[in-house]
Amino acid sequence: MKEIVIGVDLGATTVRAGAFTPQGELLVVQQTEIKARLGPDAGLQRIIRLIEKVLLEVNQADTGPVRLLGIGMGSTGPADARRGVLVNPLTLPGWIEVPVVARLTDHFDVPSCLENDADAAALGEYWAGAAAASPGVSAVRCLYAITVGTGIGTACIIDGQVYRGANGFHPEGGHQIVDPSGPQCYCGGKGCWESWSSGTAIGRAAREAIQASGAIAGQGKPGALLLALAGGEIERVEAGLVAEAARQADPLAQQVIERAAEAFAIGVFNILMLFQPEMIVLSGGVIRSLDLFMPAIERVIQAADVYIPAHQVRILPAHLGYYAGIYGAAYAILKARK
Amino acid sequence: MKEIVIGVDLGATTVRAGAFTPQGELLVVQQTEIKARLGPDAGLQRIIRLIEKVLLEVNQADTGPVRLLGIGMGSTGPADARRGVLVNPLTLPGWIEVPVVARLTDHFDVPSCLENDADAAALGEYWAGAAAASPGVSAVRCLYAITVGTGIGTACIIDGQVYRGANGFHPEGGHQIVDPSGPQCYCGGKGCWESWSSGTAIGRAAREAIQASGAIAGQGKPGALLLALAGGEIERVEAGLVAEAARQADPLAQQVIERAAEAFAIGVFNILMLFQPEMIVLSGGVIRSLDLFMPAIERVIQAADVYIPAHQVRILPAHLGYYAGIYGAAYAILKARK
Repeated sequence: MKEIVIGVDLGATTVRAGAFTPQGELLVVQQTEIKARLGPDAGLQRIIRLIEKVLLEVNQADTGPVRLLGIGMGSTGPADARRGVLVNPLTLPGWIEVPVVARLTDHFDVPSCLENDADAAALGEYWAGAAAASPGVSAVRCLYAITVGTGIGTACIIDGQVYRGANGFHPEGGHQIVDPSGPQCYCGGKGCWESWSSGTAIGRAAREAIQASGAIAGQGKPGALLLALAGGEIERVEAGLVAEAARQADPLAQQVIERAAEAFAIGVFNILMLFQPEMIVLSGGVIRSLDLFMPAIERVIQAADVYIPAHQVRILPAHLGYYAGIYGAAYAILKARK
Repeated sequence: MKEIVIGVDLGATTVRAGAFTPQGELLVVQQTEIKARLGPDAGLQRIIRLIEKVLLEVNQADTGPVRLLGIGMGSTGPADARRGVLVNPLTLPGWIEVPVVARLTDHFDVPSCLENDADAAALGEYWAGAAAASPGVSAVRCLYAITVGTGIGTACIIDGQVYRGANGFHPEGGHQIVDPSGPQCYCGGKGCWESWSSGTAIGRAAREAIQASGAIAGQGKPGALLLALAGGEIERVEAGLVAEAARQADPLAQQVIERAAEAFAIGVFNILMLFQPEMIVLSGGVIRSLDLFMPAIERVIQAADVYIPAHQVRILPAHLGYYAGIYGAAYAILKARK
């Protein structure tokens, strides 16, 4: 009988579910809105119906009977992987202490498990993405994943296992301090990675630089091109536009990106020193502009060569895009069953 | 029959060996000079004779026949734990590619293993030191150990296993960058932890500050007390004297310690964010002045409370002192046999 696992990726607006073979082949994928505001009970019903839809489609594929081995879920955090409970996701208002693992196991009568979404995406890249020699066969033992978007999320995978800290919780590597001359962050640190190099930080730094430069007033000044890309509205200046303006040689945008890239490179250096991963996988909106960050990163890696032979560390973009989470969730339940 | 394991700690000048019960009780300890300059063959002979001496003493203790289960060794690095080979320790000149594990296993006909000395000391504290509820029973799952002396060494123990990076190598957390406005380090980074907060860095910063302040010339100036403690010879100013002068309210020494402590606290903050350990154990010469560092560390931990509940992280000095290495080496071979 054909065996499958289901991987679910629960985000703030969308929930996605995929059916996979134990060898890492994606058979079917479906997604729907989560409508989180309707509350966790309605949300769990939507997730269950989505999984049932995926199972139906797999069964209709006429490849013979199918046995469901288990369900893994990656979720927007914080998620308590050990207890299988969504603790209180900032992005799912009112979803407090939701026992998703117990509910999925009850309904489908199979083992299920929960991971933080950053951990799930890293597991996906480990199993079937950037770190995989072929689907289901990882080519590395130690993978570090960094997602740079609104914030900076991190995950460390060792021998297919998620690194967990005290009480099974997910470390927040995005809040390591890389240069204390930077801004105060809500995390309690001053000049942490996220406060320098996230999409949010890049947008804010650019807006502040425009204000300071007087680009609002005059054509041809540094930042004028960036401001023009934003339709002249400073509040519309965000990281994507800053990258675009930097490519078009706006000196203000170039300077903002350069500063963010230097701080980003320090964070990468620290991860090399503290974790010595074989591979670093980068994802998230800001990584679409990875070419602008790579010169600084490469400079730093060459410098770290005293301890970390540069050729032993591969730094590359993620391969699975939006599907990393469902791949990793599927892998997590495969591992958990063993 | 009584079962024992041997733990060996190989340093630059001294080698120490202890016999332990599998429950973590130290029965016998012996040490001798390693005389590293006579080369690895002579050195290995000295280590073997030392172990034989320990075994003889255990046998003479009249507790009945004894069975040796295995030998663990912690060694000044770099040591390749995976291959059981000393690679090329800077502190053991000429000891290049020395297969210590193979030699010990050949001679004693028992399993043996090799760890980096920082990892071995951390394992010792995990098994029977600061992290142990009782000897042989660790009270924590995730321990981070920091040694601050000439340099800064780090080790991470998870579930009794040493965290290893690419190719099984030992990460160099002492070279994470904590403030890039600091000095260039031989590691390739600028403003790394070691370059701010090691004993070497504290001594150097104090000597530079004395030079700059003109304390050499005049009584009563900041640094004059420190210089007096050093017998008036600036080249004799080192970290221990700086701490002593700071305690006696020398403003220059206080400022140097304060700066080192602030940078040290950033490194601790980063380890909290990146590893979320349950416990941080501190050792090494500089930690004798831990009271001078604690205010900065505590400030930082309170600030990190957004992500890491401060009461969940215990920060304390190591318990086993010079014996941490033999304890940890003994534990390593016990674990490796399972």
